[in-house]
Amino acid sequence: MPTRTHLPTKRELVDLRREFHAFPEPGWREFWTTTRIVEELERLGVDRIHVGAEALDPDERLGVPDEQELSAWYERAVARTDRTDILEQLAGGHTGAVAVVERGDGPTVGLRVDIDALPIAESSDEDHRPAAEGFRSENEGYMHACGHDAHVTFGLGTLQAVVESDFTGTFKVFFQPSEELLGGGKAMASGSHIDDVDYLIGAHVGLDNPTGTVVGGIDEALAFARFDVTFTGESAHAGLAPNQGRNAVQALVDATSNIYGIPRHQEGATRVNVGELRSDNAANVVASEATATVEVRGESDELMEYMRDAVHRHVDAAAAAHDCEAGLSLIGEAIREDSDEELVGLVGEIADEVDGVSSVRRRDRLGASEDATFLMRAVKENGGKATYVGVGGGNPSGHHTPTFDIDEDSLQIGVSLLSDTALAILS
Amino acid sequence: MPTRTHLPTKRELVDLRREFHAFPEPGWREFWTTTRIVEELERLGVDRIHVGAEALDPDERLGVPDEQELSAWYERAVARTDRTDILEQLAGGHTGAVAVVERGDGPTVGLRVDIDALPIAESSDEDHRPAAEGFRSENEGYMHACGHDAHVTFGLGTLQAVVESDFTGTFKVFFQPSEELLGGGKAMASGSHIDDVDYLIGAHVGLDNPTGTVVGGIDEALAFARFDVTFTGESAHAGLAPNQGRNAVQALVDATSNIYGIPRHQEGATRVNVGELRSDNAANVVASEATATVEVRGESDELMEYMRDAVHRHVDAAAAAHDCEAGLSLIGEAIREDSDEELVGLVGEIADEVDGVSSVRRRDRLGASEDATFLMRAVKENGGKATYVGVGGGNPSGHHTPTFDIDEDSLQIGVSLLSDTALAILS
Amino acid sequence: MPTRTHLPTKRELVDLRREFHAFPEPGWREFWTTTRIVEELERLGVDRIHVGAEALDPDERLGVPDEQELSAWYERAVARTDRTDILEQLAGGHTGAVAVVERGDGPTVGLRVDIDALPIAESSDEDHRPAAEGFRSENEGYMHACGHDAHVTFGLGTLQAVVESDFTGTFKVFFQPSEELLGGGKAMASGSHIDDVDYLIGAHVGLDNPTGTVVGGIDEALAFARFDVTFTGESAHAGLAPNQGRNAVQALVDATSNIYGIPRHQEGATRVNVGELRSDNAANVVASEATATVEVRGESDELMEYMRDAVHRHVDAAAAAHDCEAGLSLIGEAIREDSDEELVGLVGEIADEVDGVSSVRRRDRLGASEDATFLMRAVKENGGKATYVGVGGGNPSGHHTPTFDIDEDSLQIGVSLLSDTALAILS
Amino acid sequence: MPTRTHLPTKRELVDLRREFHAFPEPGWREFWTTTRIVEELERLGVDRIHVGAEALDPDERLGVPDEQELSAWYERAVARTDRTDILEQLAGGHTGAVAVVERGDGPTVGLRVDIDALPIAESSDEDHRPAAEGFRSENEGYMHACGHDAHVTFGLGTLQAVVESDFTGTFKVFFQPSEELLGGGKAMASGSHIDDVDYLIGAHVGLDNPTGTVVGGIDEALAFARFDVTFTGESAHAGLAPNQGRNAVQALVDATSNIYGIPRHQEGATRVNVGELRSDNAANVVASEATATVEVRGESDELMEYMRDAVHRHVDAAAAAHDCEAGLSLIGEAIREDSDEELVGLVGEIADEVDGVSSVRRRDRLGASEDATFLMRAVKENGGKATYVGVGGGNPSGHHTPTFDIDEDSLQIGVSLLSDTALAILS
Repeated sequence: MPTRTHLPTKRELVDLRREFHAFPEPGWREFWTTTRIVEELERLGVDRIHVGAEALDPDERLGVPDEQELSAWYERAVARTDRTDILEQLAGGHTGAVAVVERGDGPTVGLRVDIDALPIAESSDEDHRPAAEGFRSENEGYMHACGHDAHVTFGLGTLQAVVESDFTGTFKVFFQPSEELLGGGKAMASGSHIDDVDYLIGAHVGLDNPTGTVVGGIDEALAFARFDVTFTGESAHAGLAPNQGRNAVQALVDATSNIYGIPRHQEGATRVNVGELRSDNAANVVASEATATVEVRGESDELMEYMRDAVHRHVDAAAAAHDCEAGLSLIGEAIREDSDEELVGLVGEIADEVDGVSSVRRRDRLGASEDATFLMRAVKENGGKATYVGVGGGNPSGHHTPTFDIDEDSLQIGVSLLSDTALAILS
Repeated sequence: MPTRTHLPTKRELVDLRREFHAFPEPGWREFWTTTRIVEELERLGVDRIHVGAEALDPDERLGVPDEQELSAWYERAVARTDRTDILEQLAGGHTGAVAVVERGDGPTVGLRVDIDALPIAESSDEDHRPAAEGFRSENEGYMHACGHDAHVTFGLGTLQAVVESDFTGTFKVFFQPSEELLGGGKAMASGSHIDDVDYLIGAHVGLDNPTGTVVGGIDEALAFARFDVTFTGESAHAGLAPNQGRNAVQALVDATSNIYGIPRHQEGATRVNVGELRSDNAANVVASEATATVEVRGESDELMEYMRDAVHRHVDAAAAAHDCEAGLSLIGEAIREDSDEELVGLVGEIADEVDGVSSVRRRDRLGASEDATFLMRAVKENGGKATYVGVGGGNPSGHHTPTFDIDEDSLQIGVSLLSDTALAILS
Repeated sequence: MPTRTHLPTKRELVDLRREFHAFPEPGWREFWTTTRIVEELERLGVDRIHVGAEALDPDERLGVPDEQELSAWYERAVARTDRTDILEQLAGGHTGAVAVVERGDGPTVGLRVDIDALPIAESSDEDHRPAAEGFRSENEGYMHACGHDAHVTFGLGTLQAVVESDFTGTFKVFFQPSEELLGGGKAMASGSHIDDVDYLIGAHVGLDNPTGTVVGGIDEALAFARFDVTFTGESAHAGLAPNQGRNAVQALVDATSNIYGIPRHQEGATRVNVGELRSDNAANVVASEATATVEVRGESDELMEYMRDAVHRHVDAAAAAHDCEAGLSLIGEAIREDSDEELVGLVGEIADEVDGVSSVRRRDRLGASEDATFLMRAVKENGGKATYVGVGGGNPSGHHTPTFDIDEDSLQIGVSLLSDTALAILS
Repeated sequence: MPTRTHLPTKRELVDLRREFHAFPEPGWREFWTTTRIVEELERLGVDRIHVGAEALDPDERLGVPDEQELSAWYERAVARTDRTDILEQLAGGHTGAVAVVERGDGPTVGLRVDIDALPIAESSDEDHRPAAEGFRSENEGYMHACGHDAHVTFGLGTLQAVVESDFTGTFKVFFQPSEELLGGGKAMASGSHIDDVDYLIGAHVGLDNPTGTVVGGIDEALAFARFDVTFTGESAHAGLAPNQGRNAVQALVDATSNIYGIPRHQEGATRVNVGELRSDNAANVVASEATATVEVRGESDELMEYMRDAVHRHVDAAAAAHDCEAGLSLIGEAIREDSDEELVGLVGEIADEVDGVSSVRRRDRLGASEDATFLMRAVKENGGKATYVGVGGGNPSGHHTPTFDIDEDSLQIGVSLLSDTALAILS
């Protein structure tokens, strides 16, 4: 194992995490977050920094918001940084970055962390530490309610530890945007930086594991697809000429009813949901437009695809039934990819030696969906190994709730675990 | 007006009507009925008799039952008549006849009567005259519950009156099969015998008008179409592999729900109904087949077609939604065609002179559907005139009920009215 | 007929109409409009002015917007008038007014005009006269696109003519708010001012009749009801625990599907439509809330009630099916009430004498819905007579379109017709 | 282990199996089958024979056919046996029997076999041995297509082996009717004969295991419920008065659509299916009656109950929506009950010693549903042990197919295994 000359202090890590916590930005709008990451990368002196369209395949981004929404967040970032040189590279929702440290021939190890926040209004209760200690969200209605502030800190802290260490090979950190929308993983896996990665480690804090617990491989993420569905018909006065309309509401109702009725699958669990229904036409006209968002999941890619194909079929058929046009666009996607035994084992061995780790579990079940799986799949298809590590964090309330928080002791445990693991491979 | 030398006696007409009443046969199965009509036509000495495939366009018959059903009724007829020479011309559901009386140059007048019965079990109550007086249906479960036995009598009685009269021109009677199924009118109108008809009179007994009332033109029949719908999918064990099925029940349910939701039309009344649902697959398999019968109606042909097109669209779309195949076959049809003022007036004038007529109404509304309209349309398209006459009959209970009956006094009134009207034209 | 000493000039009427046109306010938000009307009533010196809660029964108002919406419009009005003494009486959506002129014993004649505007963005095209001549809507997104600016002018102009005339009896003008929402008619008919009205005249400009045409009675308004429907269930993570949800989207879809399938009615035309669907829950949670607006109509009150009862049934049943709670609130209503022959005749006679009238039609069909019918019904139930008069106005494009306008020549014709009719009764 | 003095010869067992194979009777109609079993029990000289209503709780029978159906099968049995003394005890669908052999104090061992056949038309192909060798089904359209003929043979053969052996305790065989309908297990478990059973063994031949394979415990049967659903509305003429109907077809369609949309459950697999749809009303009337059969399943009793409760809710709500009455009757039920480790182990040990057994598997997954589980649950609730044993049988085509057959070598293996296991306990 190489010598690690520097591990950031707990204070350094806590300060970083709180800075990111206070300015949460949702998917494809991480303008300030990415800028701040790049500033840090420059400070650490990594060998290469790839930003925005250079970090991922911009054509594979899913769920990018419209120009108006992007601009509003961009302007907020402009107001908070003077590094417009970096910001300008991010315009149009080209957020995210990849940092590379190169030290001659040897394996390439990647660390993937996600950087986006959620549209959840953070608690201002005095029992909620970010509120009590002054680093509560400054972007009202948005919050780091899933620990991605800690993940950014994992990424920067691990880089700091690695960059000052002695090793042979290459170390990359993927600061992935838009995980909550399941919109960034595919784009990052479609970029070129993953191609030479031999070992990939993803990491997630919390997940109901207490501080001191490490899970070598968190698996069984549900494969996932999210669609925006639009039916376009023709309006007509509902009292005077209902027959002249082509009713987008009827089409949406038809499709939704059928989508909930997609048969269960013998191979395992599937999921389906329809949300965000909307038709703005006044009730006295036959609706010319109606929209919804549909999500499907499956225990395996095949099960998700079974659901996805059925959604496509029902949307097309409902449009045909009601003489409407259907639009269906993919706005989020994740696959299932489980952790490799070899890396799960290695992480376990390293964890046993990390200060603060009291319990090591080999594997756990995620239940939800996660698009780190695209990067894991890419590495494995190239013959590499990948795992998705759990770093216990003692969250007082569940992920995606207004009072979510992490035990900040987990920051140094995570950085120590991840840097030690990376350096163990890069020996 | 020509001299009419013979009007059948009430006794003759009552005997005829009761004979037909006692052996009701449903649409395309009027084997004995047609045979018996032809026997009478021979007895009356009409000039030409066209039977079965010679009476109508056999390719335009709608709703012809399957071979097994036809055979069963054919065998009943075989057992009741020794005129197998006539019967053999009817095999395969080629029922119906056209009788022609030719008396040199002059106009051609047609009379259209229908001859089929209904799948209704006749009352055996002593208050029901057919039961009390011994001419109740011998075909259990079937009944002349709409007066077509009287219509056959109108046809034969009028022929008898006309054939023995002195006139110039041609008189035809169309004994149309399968009106209740709305399956025979189109076929008869597609045959050649209607082509030279200048004046066509249809007639219906009863319709809630008392004996002695005559209506010159019964109008506003609803245009109508009936379809057999079949969805064919693929069965699979509902417990072991529901995803392997292609669910015909889901397709049928989807289509039915959408069909009931076809928008109302600004131009007027429309109707829709789905009946005779059936899926025989046991509940533990995903259904591979499901069927139903769909009926649509409209105040006008266009309104009916609006509904029909929507049914087509929904059936196709529901099949696509559930990955099934759809079959949709037209099994009944009627159009709307109203009576011509000229004939309505003539019938009114004649009626004023007919014994037993106490009230003459120019027009009434039918409400239901009627396929005499196809023959009326054909005549009018050729420049002729048509009307559909109501002959009051004092029915004690509603049409299509087990205790329907007619006041037999209406028989001679009808024959008198119809023959006088025909002869008035053929002067 | 009494002597009419004063008819407003065309210039006066045009100025009034343009002033109201430029500041359109939607239903229950006619704060400035009502204030301005009251100012004019004061100027005319009518005997009594009833404003807001004194003009109608406030508990019977339907479709009153929420406090935030009301406040926003109230503030706009505050900025446009210094008559806060009047405005304050209108706070909370208590708009509308009744003006009374009393001249001793004699019959009471009422004139009902509506005052609200539509949520339609007015055209800024140079071909659109309000834009070309500088009186286009100053409330962007809202417009007098149905001529209620002319109706206010009818009301004020007629009052001016009547107040300066010599007559015996009482004359009332009902400036009714919120007709477009069908929210104000019931409330005004439930107030006390209609109780002693012996003759009620409603009036509508335009309606595809050219300037110079008068219609004595516009009838066959469709009875109407509009509901806000809300389903409340319980959210749950759609991936982790779909069974824990109670799905408001499924309830809404179920109800909507069934509502469109309400059977047609033998008695005549019915209508149904569902609009403004909305469920804001993100697609990854089972929706806890879903809303829509439902409208039903019928050729008669009974037909509307048939539809309304079925909507109630389907909403309740869909909630039960999906274990949700249903809320259903009536937010708009109209009944059918046709014009009395006596008044239709009188209007026709008067119209024949009015300058500029070139064509008088006795009756026309409205097709749409109208809540003046509540006032008409109230008068008729008290033994009085009512009619709803059409004043041709040569609109260049249809009602409720961004380029709707009226021929301002119709203003004086209308005022002349209405005041002459009123005075003819008040002789 | 006690001395077993007699094991039936393969010839005896094959003859028995073929005799039962040739006369398959479906659930609650096993009149001849039960009679023939009782004859054999008499021949074997068992100590007690309980027949029909004495064998089970008749009030707990599910899915008993109507009187006409029962009579038809009863008459067939009358024609095939002269033991009317036995038959008469079975009238009304009281089929099934329990045989008891008592040999003093000691444990009670039960063997449960099922005796009913399926509504499947047996192949007459020469490749199908029952056809080739003359013991094909004599009840056309019905077939022992799941090996219950072998199960009867297991029961009688094991009894023969046990009755002639030397042991202490009690041995019972439960000849359970109506397993295919999942209608008899609950009734037999509700009777008194199961109460003192300490060890219960169920057995199934085939299940895709080859001859020579034995499975100690076949588990994970899906909990199951089957319902007959009936909607009763009111008919009306679909053309004349659709609004007067209360449409049972709409109710059925509504319920079916909702039933297929019951949310998936986080705890595991659920299943749902709707079959046997039927509405006989002609398409020209609003349907007054519509029926279907609904099946639900779950990996656990709780999952099945979740589905069942939702079906109840949807049926009731659909009836309310369409103003119909709903009838819902349980006609089949099964629970999940897995095998006890102790007995699984014992069966495995015994199997290792049985002639012809070449492979022993501890456990396998059933996938389908099975109502032996009710008897297993009853025994376990009383503190006993139960298992459901698989006896490989080399079926050439799948269960429930027209060419299903078993390798008759499995008969002696099964009898040997079951009697040795019983006697091992009864030592």
